[in-house]
Amino acid sequence: MRELDRAECLRLLATVSLGRIVFTQHALPAVRPVNHLVHGGDIVVRISEGGALASLAAPAEVPGVVVAYEADAIDPETHLGWSVVVTGYARPVTDPGEAARYADLLHPWAGRPSSHVLRIHPDLVTGFRLESVPARPLRALHG
Amino acid sequence: MRELDRAECLRLLATVSLGRIVFTQHALPAVRPVNHLVHGGDIVVRISEGGALASLAAPAEVPGVVVAYEADAIDPETHLGWSVVVTGYARPVTDPGEAARYADLLHPWAGRPSSHVLRIHPDLVTGFRLESVPARPLRALHG
Repeated sequence: MRELDRAECLRLLATVSLGRIVFTQHALPAVRPVNHLVHGGDIVVRISEGGALASLAAPAEVPGVVVAYEADAIDPETHLGWSVVVTGYARPVTDPGEAARYADLLHPWAGRPSSHVLRIHPDLVTGFRLESVPARPLRALHG
Repeated sequence: MRELDRAECLRLLATVSLGRIVFTQHALPAVRPVNHLVHGGDIVVRISEGGALASLAAPAEVPGVVVAYEADAIDPETHLGWSVVVTGYARPVTDPGEAARYADLLHPWAGRPSSHVLRIHPDLVTGFRLESVPARPLRALHG
């Protein structure tokens, strides 16, 4: 298992479009799958209005709500692959033009009402890659 | 988008072996990918000792720590697929025989030290399935 540095984590995050936003709802841990893009070192996600994520779209506190964001590409059989977790403040994108540009890039999900765009500033970035274990030398087999 | 009932959520969860456990660490939202199995209506996961999940293996409080567990199978392009989120208390499996049986079924991850087995009792089970939108009739094309 190899720990990944911040730059590699963000690079890997940008290679996939699906992840899970992790937040607190009614004092309980909560998680939802969403689409993302990486822009200017931030994670940008689109969330549906009125859903579990609505509290993130209009945070009661400034400077926003702390969330975690996870994406991975792990083979369920071999466990090879990578996982990245970003932790930071999520803030709604309030500029209408900017929000519209992001919304265009982040296709809405079927059956979901109109949505907000959130920007997550990654204060903490961790990740690991599970690489294949080098095959054992065959010497033992040949005596 | 179709909401799924508890039985279908647990059935879908059992069709995959990889999910993400969501918990609170130092008052911050945290998430890690793990392998799971579904047994007797509970979610059983194996976690590595000494990692971020260690606090779950020896919870300070009885009856354990509330976690969320998410698994999904979603096409990143079409968004078709499903996602299930379970919320409930996570408790270590303390019976050595039982823990060993589960550990055998939940292959350890490369490079991770010896591990604990956690059982998550799903108090809250939610899930949705995104199904394909029926194709628009071709009448318009044929005039």
